[in-house]
Amino acid sequence: MAHVHSIVDIITRKRDGGRLEEAEIRWVIDRYSRGDLPEEQMAALAMAIFFRGLDDAETGALVDAMLRSGSVLDLAALGPGRVDKHSTGGVGDKISLPLAPAAAACGCVVPMVSGRGLGHTGGTIDKLEAIGGFSADVDTARLVEILGDVGCAIVGQTADIAPADKRLYALRDVTATVPSLPLIVASIMSKKLAEGIEGLVLDVKVGRGAFMKTLAEGRALARAMVGVGEAMGVRVIAYLTRMDAPIGRMVGNACEVDEALEVLRGGGPEDTRELVVTLGGAMVEIAAGVTRAEGERRVAAALDDGSALARFERMVAAQGGDLTRVGRAAEGASTLVLAERSGFVAAIDALEVALTCVAMGAGRERQGDVIDPAVGVRIEARVGERVEAGEALARVYHGERGAPSADAIARLRAAFTLGDAAPDAVPIVIERLG
Amino acid sequence: MAHVHSIVDIITRKRDGGRLEEAEIRWVIDRYSRGDLPEEQMAALAMAIFFRGLDDAETGALVDAMLRSGSVLDLAALGPGRVDKHSTGGVGDKISLPLAPAAAACGCVVPMVSGRGLGHTGGTIDKLEAIGGFSADVDTARLVEILGDVGCAIVGQTADIAPADKRLYALRDVTATVPSLPLIVASIMSKKLAEGIEGLVLDVKVGRGAFMKTLAEGRALARAMVGVGEAMGVRVIAYLTRMDAPIGRMVGNACEVDEALEVLRGGGPEDTRELVVTLGGAMVEIAAGVTRAEGERRVAAALDDGSALARFERMVAAQGGDLTRVGRAAEGASTLVLAERSGFVAAIDALEVALTCVAMGAGRERQGDVIDPAVGVRIEARVGERVEAGEALARVYHGERGAPSADAIARLRAAFTLGDAAPDAVPIVIERLG
Repeated sequence: MAHVHSIVDIITRKRDGGRLEEAEIRWVIDRYSRGDLPEEQMAALAMAIFFRGLDDAETGALVDAMLRSGSVLDLAALGPGRVDKHSTGGVGDKISLPLAPAAAACGCVVPMVSGRGLGHTGGTIDKLEAIGGFSADVDTARLVEILGDVGCAIVGQTADIAPADKRLYALRDVTATVPSLPLIVASIMSKKLAEGIEGLVLDVKVGRGAFMKTLAEGRALARAMVGVGEAMGVRVIAYLTRMDAPIGRMVGNACEVDEALEVLRGGGPEDTRELVVTLGGAMVEIAAGVTRAEGERRVAAALDDGSALARFERMVAAQGGDLTRVGRAAEGASTLVLAERSGFVAAIDALEVALTCVAMGAGRERQGDVIDPAVGVRIEARVGERVEAGEALARVYHGERGAPSADAIARLRAAFTLGDAAPDAVPIVIERLG
Repeated sequence: MAHVHSIVDIITRKRDGGRLEEAEIRWVIDRYSRGDLPEEQMAALAMAIFFRGLDDAETGALVDAMLRSGSVLDLAALGPGRVDKHSTGGVGDKISLPLAPAAAACGCVVPMVSGRGLGHTGGTIDKLEAIGGFSADVDTARLVEILGDVGCAIVGQTADIAPADKRLYALRDVTATVPSLPLIVASIMSKKLAEGIEGLVLDVKVGRGAFMKTLAEGRALARAMVGVGEAMGVRVIAYLTRMDAPIGRMVGNACEVDEALEVLRGGGPEDTRELVVTLGGAMVEIAAGVTRAEGERRVAAALDDGSALARFERMVAAQGGDLTRVGRAAEGASTLVLAERSGFVAAIDALEVALTCVAMGAGRERQGDVIDPAVGVRIEARVGERVEAGEALARVYHGERGAPSADAIARLRAAFTLGDAAPDAVPIVIERLG
């Protein structure tokens, strides 16, 4: 049965703009996962794909092959309504924390496999681990149990989820083939579909604090994800959302947990709540087969009536966490960043805020770095707000490390652009596809 | 002094169409030669170069770095006039055999480092090894001695000539990055410039029996070679020549030696002599600083007055060869391929003739295959000649292997296209650059 393909022919055809057959893609990924395809041939193929692209069917075949390189959760016993959300990564993006329990409170089953932070974007697992005792290391049997009881769980990626993707990602990282749209799509989808879900809501962040800097790039990714989802029989709804200033007021691990709890109590910053309602609404729309408006109404109600908070508390408890023990900075272990002039906040450079936080210990510059959950920044003057000279722009929580350096303070101050007039308000949700 | 470069930055810049600095190219090749650059990174860079190209200065830097990865012959003591010829490879291309001694007879010093055949093109060394005792395995000291005595030598590539090219070529072969113009140019030039020459004449073959199928491809290669030569201070004259039908009448190792001897005696097929006179004339033009016409006149005279033959005999003797022992097929060990209809030979598919010869043992399908020097084909009816049904199109020398299969005979017959009218004569030299 095993047809023999020639890897040089396959690379040549893609190099010259041709199509690859599903069987060829499967053969390449099977061999690569087993260590039978030399890294240099995979690198050449990845670079050819960077230049020539993959169509929806090719990308679908790649997703399928990477998915089958590992195991797929069998959650059929939990019934229908299995949906998840994926964000392309932002600054202050604590959305998953209130989102998963809010969707679960509306009848969704949310088996959220999430990652740790690297570089300027934080990881959902890192945020949850600011909660004393919380563990993302949950085996499949226990995951199914928690999902049956609570309706949602947020767990770390295990070694048997799409191992081909793990290997390919490490190769792309050293061969300048990370920013290839079909390879990005395949990487996201193969990991998400390993969750055994029926639908996926995608938050494609666009702007200076996002991987996608332009709307055109974001749209291309969103379209490709929707197309591949269609090709694979999974409903994908994609939102393009603005990622220029940090989401909400909080950037950092423990302080983002606090802000997530505010949202779960029906409060929190307006943009943060809007993202939860919009993305969660789409999850309910897919899972329950209702309209977009009805989905959003149900999620908003779950935030307001305490049912989302109750789910979150049950989920945290089921994963060993104790919400009375969040690794916040001690009282007084914070420093204010003051405005040197008066004016309206016209912009806040999310990327600069994030990089300053990482440098202070809130994130990882390289894999294996240890995170201090107490370190973070609270934005005191958000975009559109007025500040007088000498008033606070931001508060830095530095935990036990001592006050931030003058350099870090100056860098944070410089992240704020002050103007004389109030800037026009811009909506956080830009558009929807799928 | 050693500046640290980032290979991922270098791949990224080339991927995005940017220029690489000379120091970066040197750093990449130095590390790659030492085995300190992972194959997958070199593969990704080669594929990015396939898509984005290299300009003349970048290609020059690559040639220089590959050249310096090994040793360069120091032939300054032999005085000026050191020139060589390179052919991109054809069928029946025995030109180097009469060319090197003819140029030497006109005062050139020709340190010709040549290769063995692989695939459909034969290797000059393989042809010379049809002469009993001939050795291409000559060390540098002996090479300098022969060049001083005879003015020419044809030797094999040693391990210390451009080892980076050897390594890179092996990588390109398995990653579908062979047909990249700047990489082809760098491969040829790094090996040729390791000969310590001042000028190079290039024979870019174009047509169905050549690697370059179209005139446009051939021109692009010729232009790039001339440009890089200029950037490196080496005069390059390039000829585009037609490679549709085999050159001369003979294809195979021993029989090509015989045809070379005919040319060296002032005879031989017209196209073969024309190539020797044209390419050799350009070598003399560079070495002696004379006009093209004068260079060609001198080479023609050397073929006619026996001085070229004398040089050939001295060169063969100096390399251990005995011209009374050429590994020809025994009398009678040949089979005729007969015409099934009458007509004019309109075309002969050189590639088909070559592949049939290789299949019969005249060449290598893969590295390490053993060659039978006696195997070959003599074209009995050349393009433009009339043949009657039942007359010979070709004679197959099969040596001691026995008669060729019916399949091989049919394949050779099919390589001949017969028409009712005599085809227009086409010149073998198409154009000259540089």
